[in-house]
Amino acid sequence: MTGRDRGADLQAIEPSPVVILVRPQLAENIGAVARAMGNGGLFHLRLVAPRDGWPEQKAWRMASGAHRILDAATVHETVADAVQDLHRVFATCPRARHIIKPVLTARGAAVELHEIGARGLKTGVLFGPERAGLDNDDIACADSLIRYDLNPGFMSLNLAQAVMILGYEWYIARDPDAAARGLQTNETGIATKFELEQFMEHLIRLCDESGFLKNEQKRPGMVRNLWHLFQRGEITSQELNTLHGVIAELARGRKP
Amino acid sequence: MTGRDRGADLQAIEPSPVVILVRPQLAENIGAVARAMGNGGLFHLRLVAPRDGWPEQKAWRMASGAHRILDAATVHETVADAVQDLHRVFATCPRARHIIKPVLTARGAAVELHEIGARGLKTGVLFGPERAGLDNDDIACADSLIRYDLNPGFMSLNLAQAVMILGYEWYIARDPDAAARGLQTNETGIATKFELEQFMEHLIRLCDESGFLKNEQKRPGMVRNLWHLFQRGEITSQELNTLHGVIAELARGRKP
Repeated sequence: MTGRDRGADLQAIEPSPVVILVRPQLAENIGAVARAMGNGGLFHLRLVAPRDGWPEQKAWRMASGAHRILDAATVHETVADAVQDLHRVFATCPRARHIIKPVLTARGAAVELHEIGARGLKTGVLFGPERAGLDNDDIACADSLIRYDLNPGFMSLNLAQAVMILGYEWYIARDPDAAARGLQTNETGIATKFELEQFMEHLIRLCDESGFLKNEQKRPGMVRNLWHLFQRGEITSQELNTLHGVIAELARGRKP
Repeated sequence: MTGRDRGADLQAIEPSPVVILVRPQLAENIGAVARAMGNGGLFHLRLVAPRDGWPEQKAWRMASGAHRILDAATVHETVADAVQDLHRVFATCPRARHIIKPVLTARGAAVELHEIGARGLKTGVLFGPERAGLDNDDIACADSLIRYDLNPGFMSLNLAQAVMILGYEWYIARDPDAAARGLQTNETGIATKFELEQFMEHLIRLCDESGFLKNEQKRPGMVRNLWHLFQRGEITSQELNTLHGVIAELARGRKP
């Protein structure tokens, strides 16, 4: 609609659930929701009776490039209308209510959304208006509730934040291994013990040559301490290369 | 500072990591960060060289009641100053850079933050300015990097969203069982098989009385189908009570 389309490379993880904003109040929040959807690999946005009408330029300004999501958004008069082509509907519902439906965490819901989608069924998630949240009639249109596991002492959750958490879990749940993959390394590998040994030989040879280890009695303990120091954490191959250079250079400076 | 203190019941999950905003630009974003911290059970906020100075009223207006977090925030000239009392520092870093540090997901980092905190050590997490992100000097102050597992096709992540995701994972990681607890029920339990049996007896007795099951040959299959129908999903005790009432009422209407 406006601005350059930084979101040309928006990639939805299909089949992705429809995000349904029920009576959203501020267009800025709708834009922020679109941005969060982009982050989470969600694409389909429906608006039920947006308070200030639609389209609203302010939404596009807040979307930070996620314009295609807003361009494709549809407007509906009622929740029932917005969900009529869907097979399974979830409602985000922070407060405990006297409603008899299964309640999932965001993480559990994301897994279930993928499972349902993989069966070729269409899903959607309802998010309520900024202040009041979903009312009982809205929730009656849903099969299950989603309750975020967040600080019960501070329940004021921004609308775009609520969509972000779902999108984040949705994105991670695309790949069951991704969550477990806690530690990666950045373009360089952890050094092998062989690489470490090569470095330690280099270091100790230079220490010997410099006279640093000349005390024969203390030498074994000092060498052991050096080993402990460089073994303590994971050290990368690239770090070892740097250290090789450092000690070679230091040793060169010392020589006549 | 201003407004009613809706955050009087902010509960941090201590020892919680310090959130360090490096050269934040907009006071509104600092307020939105405080709100997200409240959601995630984080409390300690430090600001490094906020562009528009500090304090800024706009931050309190955006914090939605998380005023105590802003009231307690401290301002620092440099990242080095902001981290000097901490034992372990993480840096959020979306882009691949030629930096040799371990990289964790938000989920992995949250677990590690709890583990480090449990050893009595203080932790902090750096978040960069809105547009540019952290620079290489900032990152040099950190031990490890955090890279969120989000859509690489749309990397524009709002500052408060970045803090929200960390806070969300921090809150969940307080309780290793919480993540696994995918399905809860809402103030009512799933019906026992005994409760279901009582209901089915009630239903079939009324069906017999009404004449609905009068065809002796078809009766076993029809009864089996009714059982299948009510056994298909989990049914709650409260739902069964409602159904008891429904069928009793229907049966009453039929009687002379």
